[in-house]
Amino acid sequence: MIKVGIIGATGYAGSELVRLIHSHPKAKIEMIAGRSHIGSPYGQVFTNFQHLSESIYEEDLEMMASRCDVILMALPHGLSSARITQTLLDKIKVVDLGADFRLQDVAVYEQWYETAHESKHLLKEAVYGLTEIHRDAIAKARLVANPGCYTTCAILALYPLLKEGVLEPQNIVVDAKSGVSGAGRGVDLGVHFCETNESVKAYKIASHRHTPEIEEQLSLAAGEKLNLIFTPHLIPMNRGILATCYGKPKRQIKESELQEIYRQYYGNEYFIRLCRPGMFPETKWVKSSNFCDIAVAMDERTSTVIVVSALDNLGKGAAGQAVQNMNLLFGLDEKTGLDAVPAFPV
Amino acid sequence: MIKVGIIGATGYAGSELVRLIHSHPKAKIEMIAGRSHIGSPYGQVFTNFQHLSESIYEEDLEMMASRCDVILMALPHGLSSARITQTLLDKIKVVDLGADFRLQDVAVYEQWYETAHESKHLLKEAVYGLTEIHRDAIAKARLVANPGCYTTCAILALYPLLKEGVLEPQNIVVDAKSGVSGAGRGVDLGVHFCETNESVKAYKIASHRHTPEIEEQLSLAAGEKLNLIFTPHLIPMNRGILATCYGKPKRQIKESELQEIYRQYYGNEYFIRLCRPGMFPETKWVKSSNFCDIAVAMDERTSTVIVVSALDNLGKGAAGQAVQNMNLLFGLDEKTGLDAVPAFPV
Amino acid sequence: MIKVGIIGATGYAGSELVRLIHSHPKAKIEMIAGRSHIGSPYGQVFTNFQHLSESIYEEDLEMMASRCDVILMALPHGLSSARITQTLLDKIKVVDLGADFRLQDVAVYEQWYETAHESKHLLKEAVYGLTEIHRDAIAKARLVANPGCYTTCAILALYPLLKEGVLEPQNIVVDAKSGVSGAGRGVDLGVHFCETNESVKAYKIASHRHTPEIEEQLSLAAGEKLNLIFTPHLIPMNRGILATCYGKPKRQIKESELQEIYRQYYGNEYFIRLCRPGMFPETKWVKSSNFCDIAVAMDERTSTVIVVSALDNLGKGAAGQAVQNMNLLFGLDEKTGLDAVPAFPV
Amino acid sequence: MIKVGIIGATGYAGSELVRLIHSHPKAKIEMIAGRSHIGSPYGQVFTNFQHLSESIYEEDLEMMASRCDVILMALPHGLSSARITQTLLDKIKVVDLGADFRLQDVAVYEQWYETAHESKHLLKEAVYGLTEIHRDAIAKARLVANPGCYTTCAILALYPLLKEGVLEPQNIVVDAKSGVSGAGRGVDLGVHFCETNESVKAYKIASHRHTPEIEEQLSLAAGEKLNLIFTPHLIPMNRGILATCYGKPKRQIKESELQEIYRQYYGNEYFIRLCRPGMFPETKWVKSSNFCDIAVAMDERTSTVIVVSALDNLGKGAAGQAVQNMNLLFGLDEKTGLDAVPAFPV
Repeated sequence: MIKVGIIGATGYAGSELVRLIHSHPKAKIEMIAGRSHIGSPYGQVFTNFQHLSESIYEEDLEMMASRCDVILMALPHGLSSARITQTLLDKIKVVDLGADFRLQDVAVYEQWYETAHESKHLLKEAVYGLTEIHRDAIAKARLVANPGCYTTCAILALYPLLKEGVLEPQNIVVDAKSGVSGAGRGVDLGVHFCETNESVKAYKIASHRHTPEIEEQLSLAAGEKLNLIFTPHLIPMNRGILATCYGKPKRQIKESELQEIYRQYYGNEYFIRLCRPGMFPETKWVKSSNFCDIAVAMDERTSTVIVVSALDNLGKGAAGQAVQNMNLLFGLDEKTGLDAVPAFPV
Repeated sequence: MIKVGIIGATGYAGSELVRLIHSHPKAKIEMIAGRSHIGSPYGQVFTNFQHLSESIYEEDLEMMASRCDVILMALPHGLSSARITQTLLDKIKVVDLGADFRLQDVAVYEQWYETAHESKHLLKEAVYGLTEIHRDAIAKARLVANPGCYTTCAILALYPLLKEGVLEPQNIVVDAKSGVSGAGRGVDLGVHFCETNESVKAYKIASHRHTPEIEEQLSLAAGEKLNLIFTPHLIPMNRGILATCYGKPKRQIKESELQEIYRQYYGNEYFIRLCRPGMFPETKWVKSSNFCDIAVAMDERTSTVIVVSALDNLGKGAAGQAVQNMNLLFGLDEKTGLDAVPAFPV
Repeated sequence: MIKVGIIGATGYAGSELVRLIHSHPKAKIEMIAGRSHIGSPYGQVFTNFQHLSESIYEEDLEMMASRCDVILMALPHGLSSARITQTLLDKIKVVDLGADFRLQDVAVYEQWYETAHESKHLLKEAVYGLTEIHRDAIAKARLVANPGCYTTCAILALYPLLKEGVLEPQNIVVDAKSGVSGAGRGVDLGVHFCETNESVKAYKIASHRHTPEIEEQLSLAAGEKLNLIFTPHLIPMNRGILATCYGKPKRQIKESELQEIYRQYYGNEYFIRLCRPGMFPETKWVKSSNFCDIAVAMDERTSTVIVVSALDNLGKGAAGQAVQNMNLLFGLDEKTGLDAVPAFPV
Repeated sequence: MIKVGIIGATGYAGSELVRLIHSHPKAKIEMIAGRSHIGSPYGQVFTNFQHLSESIYEEDLEMMASRCDVILMALPHGLSSARITQTLLDKIKVVDLGADFRLQDVAVYEQWYETAHESKHLLKEAVYGLTEIHRDAIAKARLVANPGCYTTCAILALYPLLKEGVLEPQNIVVDAKSGVSGAGRGVDLGVHFCETNESVKAYKIASHRHTPEIEEQLSLAAGEKLNLIFTPHLIPMNRGILATCYGKPKRQIKESELQEIYRQYYGNEYFIRLCRPGMFPETKWVKSSNFCDIAVAMDERTSTVIVVSALDNLGKGAAGQAVQNMNLLFGLDEKTGLDAVPAFPV
């Protein structure tokens, strides 16, 4: 059994990590650390876990490294770069769900996150944890930078087209819609029930921090630096992200050819489900799972490629992806502990 | 008092018409006709109207024309073109909330709606009822083709930029999000609570019938024929549409200059509210009202203009707009009966 | 025009007061005071009011009394008893939406609210502001204690049966369900979208502070002191309260006789709408309004009277009721400014 | 591996059965039968099951009995009594999720369900499938009558108090609140999103068909025939039932003694989770699971016992319970395939 330490377990992503590891057949929770509720049984903080008597520890990386095989760390940006060190990585593998090690270009990080990066020297060895794209590198990594929720949804949607060079790399639009759990469990007027229920809004227009992450990964795929437009929207639902992506083909191309490209890239990927022609993703079909559903269409009238992708922001967009990476780090089948069919309606 | 006949009063848009006319200080409900619940008091069909004892008539345009000053008609497409005739218009003004008279190009209508148009000869005199754009023509019209909900949101968002010629007319993307009441009151698995709640989807990708309507009006504004990409999404909420629009400027232009253009076009429009710089629309602020909130931003990184607009699909997107047009037809202040502040939270 | 000062205008009930007075044909907003956002235009705090340029004042009762005809005060309990004085009441009428003057028995107040009452001497002249029950006294009052939201729903449901002596006064159960706006606009984990959405809970079991208020009023009606069971529940919706009340008849009584009693008491009340036999209230039919819908049924099998009532917690349960009382205080028709038909679906 | 045949698989409860069996370590889906979508792959009807290629069969009990070890049948009432015969039971075990075999008193069945019972002779051998109460009989049964959703919630809440004789058996009130999936997947105006969202209602007052089922089981526990008041309410959420139950103690009894009784009855039950003193159930903590959370309180002021219970109507209220019974029928640990921790927020 892989002994897992979880940091940041009192947030929504952290709690989803606890849930997935708790039912994982080859891993077990060794330590749960949080920044609040220290000393309380976890099942008293999250009553869905009532049977779980493990107490919440104060964070202690030293101790965690000595007792565990891997650390899953779910902290706000800026915190993991101060915690993860060469010394720590010499002792234990880390999957970091925060943003600190996702961008290779530290100048871009410091510009968008408006904070200094405290472990620049580790960036080179950090591997971007989008399994379907960086599988081989992840398998050999010590430090996995687990992708953001919006970014996973956008990158998986667009990667094949940029990698194949069929899409103009500039002027792509990613219009994304997310449930409220993406905002975390912190209290704020913006997540008050009556302020989010029965309403839709765009936010952080042209300024959301997931933008450079999508750009860096898709630039790698395209083989050239690209900028794109990313607009997140808040939707009155608990979970789920839908990304509707628009781009221009470099050459005339039929919808069927586009679909064939996706089959080549993702046809053997368990967690990526391509919709039948004419069908498009809905977030309800992936809720609570590690699946990402994708469909591509060609609008002949406007010569526009439209790709729609859906995932669970706490699943494939956070904790599910982290466990998939953990499985890979330890030589397990990637699906281990992640193959439950999504419940519906839920 | 303007005597109003309402047709299609048992749907959501029809019911909103009844509500608005019921509280209108210069108009009164003379006849309510529906295709179901004939003979029932309206307040038994919609209990919110419990005090309203008017019964629901079977549709009879002849009688309605003889008793009323204006007909507000809320029927599915294809039905009003068979009902509205030269003879009828000789007797009474009509505001048609359906799609039949919105498109001047009948070939486009018949292609997108897959049905023959039964009153082609009336298209020339029908006026597209987006008051802020066609005010003078509406005031003199006998037949007003009230715009669709998505189309109103998209056209109001983009009109000033196309009219001013600052936006490339091709390759505009309109990514729109709508509450479920836009689908009407008909029963269908697609509007079952458990199938729409807690989920988001795109639908009718590259094929929604509001597309040619947006295109025709914006082509008029641009002075050249344009095609655009329109993607509707279904959001788990009762009311509201948010349109996020993306386009390329023809020349370098600053956000402040864009905002100045909107102030010129809409600064004196009561029902269009421009957001303060840095603020963006949310559907909750316009719920149950005839307001349309708009904000424009310039993404310098990608040289993209982003316009966000929000309205209530049953308000400015349907019944509110129809009453605004009715006011104009009868020489009233456009705001009459429409100036209530939106309730919040609701 | 009645000049109105509103205190506590940055909460949900306060905001609903601003909305109702703003559209009131015989009253106008003279001053808006809040405990936050001092100096900001009200339309910047609540964007639904974008056209409303009035700024938010710091609370100053002296100044408000000199400029206004009436104060509508929406503050948390404990605050109004410290503010409202004999001197103030000599100058101006007050409708207090808080709890401080609702209970005549100060010992009960201090026990349930765990705070000292700072204006005990004013309790005698305070009138409980449930218009349908205390209309005459309210009309002559200087200080009106506007009822709580749950209490209004429960008292209106049960009053006729206790007043008529047909219900056993002991052992009544009031099982109430409320939308989240009842919890106010303060930020707290308990109103986080993801914590309230898609869930139902009972809370403050056998200990909610509205209990003694319901008991005091119904004891007055019954002519004897009664205790009852009141259980509030939190429902994932913005607005609305449904109270399902259970009691035992003192004698055999038919459903039709019960309905006749309600017609006697409420048949002429505009804001109380009795459902047709066999129909029961739903909160959607009263949303955003001052209506309270009521139905009574007799379960012959168990010899139990069941009364169901529905209102909008911010409407008849708070701000609507306050405006109804204000109308009465100034000799206006009670319906003035309150007769809008509820929008649906909204 | 237990070979399972599922009938009624295109409804919500049926779909939950498919999900649970699909991931069950000791059972496998052998045949899926439905009344619609015959011949379609199941994963095309419910896209959450995209990987599931099994086709939907037309119902054929003969064939199912020959190929399977057990039938899980999720049909509307009236249908299973016509299908389940002595001959069928000689070949295969059946867990019937419908209502036909739940009531031992056939006269009560025919009165409440307004239909003739077609297999009266099988009632004697049918065992009521509330595992925690009838475990031994279920283990030996051929025909298990799986309880209704409301009934499970109510019976589990009240059983210990009636069995122990501490509660007056008459005059119990069960006020229950259910999510919309309880109404099934059929299309109807009553489950239209806009008609159920943002509203609460009571329905089938004093007439819901789960009433006699609760009464029969609790009468058995009490050792005397009892009638009670049961009021269901519809809540705008997908899943979950909360039952708030009120009764009078036969003698003075302290809350701690009540809690001790529940510990005796349920302390060793895996699927019943007793809340810590002062805490009460919320449906969110049991969503998608087979847990039922229960708390008991004593309101000293009114001498009333209040019991609150929560479960998932498709889980412990339907499919989860059925699988628990199936496990028991085949000598497996009851938890097999049911021990996943509920996801939250979901």
